[in-house]
Amino acid sequence: MPRGAKFRRLEGGVAAARGFSAAGVRCGIKHNQRALDLGLILSDRRCSAAAVFTTIAIPAAPVGWTREVVRKGGARAAVVNSGNANACTGERGARDAAAMAIAAARQLGVNPEAVCVSSTGVIGHPLPLEKIVAGIADAAEALCPEHAGGEAFARAIMTTDTHPKAFAVQTVIGGKVITIGGSAKGSGMIEPNMATMLSFITTDAAVSPAMLRRALKAAASRSFNRITIDGDMSTNDTLLVLANGAAGNRRIDRVGRSFDQFAAALEFVCVHLAKMLVRDGEGATKFVEIRVARAASAADAVTVAKAVANSPLVKCAIHGGDPNWGRIVCRAAGCGAKVVGEKTSLRIGGKLAFAKGLPAKTPESELAAAMRGKDVEIELDLGLGKGSATVWTCDLSRDYVTINADYRT
Amino acid sequence: MPRGAKFRRLEGGVAAARGFSAAGVRCGIKHNQRALDLGLILSDRRCSAAAVFTTIAIPAAPVGWTREVVRKGGARAAVVNSGNANACTGERGARDAAAMAIAAARQLGVNPEAVCVSSTGVIGHPLPLEKIVAGIADAAEALCPEHAGGEAFARAIMTTDTHPKAFAVQTVIGGKVITIGGSAKGSGMIEPNMATMLSFITTDAAVSPAMLRRALKAAASRSFNRITIDGDMSTNDTLLVLANGAAGNRRIDRVGRSFDQFAAALEFVCVHLAKMLVRDGEGATKFVEIRVARAASAADAVTVAKAVANSPLVKCAIHGGDPNWGRIVCRAAGCGAKVVGEKTSLRIGGKLAFAKGLPAKTPESELAAAMRGKDVEIELDLGLGKGSATVWTCDLSRDYVTINADYRT
Repeated sequence: MPRGAKFRRLEGGVAAARGFSAAGVRCGIKHNQRALDLGLILSDRRCSAAAVFTTIAIPAAPVGWTREVVRKGGARAAVVNSGNANACTGERGARDAAAMAIAAARQLGVNPEAVCVSSTGVIGHPLPLEKIVAGIADAAEALCPEHAGGEAFARAIMTTDTHPKAFAVQTVIGGKVITIGGSAKGSGMIEPNMATMLSFITTDAAVSPAMLRRALKAAASRSFNRITIDGDMSTNDTLLVLANGAAGNRRIDRVGRSFDQFAAALEFVCVHLAKMLVRDGEGATKFVEIRVARAASAADAVTVAKAVANSPLVKCAIHGGDPNWGRIVCRAAGCGAKVVGEKTSLRIGGKLAFAKGLPAKTPESELAAAMRGKDVEIELDLGLGKGSATVWTCDLSRDYVTINADYRT
Repeated sequence: MPRGAKFRRLEGGVAAARGFSAAGVRCGIKHNQRALDLGLILSDRRCSAAAVFTTIAIPAAPVGWTREVVRKGGARAAVVNSGNANACTGERGARDAAAMAIAAARQLGVNPEAVCVSSTGVIGHPLPLEKIVAGIADAAEALCPEHAGGEAFARAIMTTDTHPKAFAVQTVIGGKVITIGGSAKGSGMIEPNMATMLSFITTDAAVSPAMLRRALKAAASRSFNRITIDGDMSTNDTLLVLANGAAGNRRIDRVGRSFDQFAAALEFVCVHLAKMLVRDGEGATKFVEIRVARAASAADAVTVAKAVANSPLVKCAIHGGDPNWGRIVCRAAGCGAKVVGEKTSLRIGGKLAFAKGLPAKTPESELAAAMRGKDVEIELDLGLGKGSATVWTCDLSRDYVTINADYRT
């Protein structure tokens, strides 16, 4: 895990890295008359591209388009709309995703096959393509390489997120300052259908597509793939990274020190953005870190951590500040991973709650205090092997139910 | 699936079958001064016994005891306390479970190894054994072969259940009237720790232990193993059936017509009790049946049905009466089972919502009406193979959060 000290934080999100500009405009998909709903990213030169997509059996149309762009290894731009997911839209959806790329390509003077496309919002409705095409023209006009461009882009991809999410860092690799910036939109319910996770990361590092893929896969596995709000996957989930090489570093095209430095910085940005998503989870009032250590295998560690993170009983207990260690231990013991009661110990906020099959002697008041904070730490030591995993989640509140039950009623 | 018409319903729960008596008394574990918390079942002769237990890695002490009783194939009695689960209680817990059996055996004049033991309630606290032993003496005094005995037993095993659950039917097998009755306690939160499912079924049918096991396993797989409130498993889950042969039928000791009739009746009782648990799920305001048809395999059908049933997003939508088909289709498509959008169709309350990868033309108002009832039916046809499964669940309400977040705070 990279230490924060190595990285200098800066403003600008996806527009922070050299050679990138970004914009966010209103094209009129969202009902709120003031909400931005179309975002655009442009690089002044061709980028290596890598992405991680939803593994759902029915991905949305733009996922299919962007997968092809990335498969070819390069991109110049990304166009995103919010308010409509272009999912479950059949052949028309595929045509509309292509039309978004073509419209952006025309405005930007690039090849349509170099334009990544994402959508997020209501599913099962055709895209309002005329509005989007007009919005793309506005966004191309508004492109800005400064902080304002990254900020507008971050706003334009939001759905039920309560605030925009952008982050950027600088680090030095091979004597060159490189910048990695990104933006993400969350795990909020989308009007009126589902949570979609979208994240766009830009960097001026020079990295080959293969090395970029490798770094992104590792970073995703320890960031976006380690958060959960409610266990649901969307049709549109996309994590995209574009690397344009404007920093002038020697191109990273193999594993080694430079690659490790780049991968650590990318992971740092991904972890930060992923945590921002959790903190802004629907109805969330608390941020929860679940660490599982000494599981029989790495896979078991992830299984246990995610099982605990997705337990409604555990999440409600955390919401209420109830140090209900029984729910945590039982969820771990019931999830299918190897767990032996006598070898298991549980700490809540560093306080021992359960050890060797028995409740610990820690006074309940101390456990309750640990459970009552805004940030809650749960550590399960399974005492079996070398597997470990960390997962981040939030609590389950009445507001979560309200947001998701009453949205249209 | 057996048709209800074949069975005559009657009162009496676990005391309905000939030769069984039951009692429920207050021994003082629960805080509520009027709540019963100790239940007892006695058969006037030795019974074949079969059971299905929690598969959790840290089962409670009484599960270990009862597993041994059942392994030997026979039993005379069952003793149950509520308010304390005797879970995560180490060696003392095992001694206490044995002590409960010994105390009951002494009062009833039977072998301790013929006494099944169950507990449900708070975990991690030692049993108040003196109270329980005194309660067992009271319960032995109170044993009653009539309706009142079954009713009191049903009350004594409750935790946060809002009402007692008992059910019994009669049917004719080989010219003899046989009775199967049962009681269950649910998937309510237990003060203050976890949901436990306990169910006790008694019958006067003459059935060999092996055939009883076979019938119970099949019945459980289509009843108690097909319900979910919140996806959590407990340390104490137990489904026990005792068959004492008092009906005088020719002993069922092989597969055949009599076995099939018995198995169908047992399944009918199990399904009825399981549905009662769902209807009384914590905070539940709706009963939801999820049917998956034409999955690639039987296992896939169960995976999809349970994934949909456990989705907080789907459960919240049902709570709010929102015909949010996107959440249902996406949960199905994201759960790991084989799903092909173009082959999938979804009906809500019989109305087509999604077909062949696209939203159906059914007006939203009709889907909304289907979603607004107290009973909601969701049918997913995956169009792939012959796998099918039915799962029952309830909605997710603000009350669920309140019950589970604020219990101790």
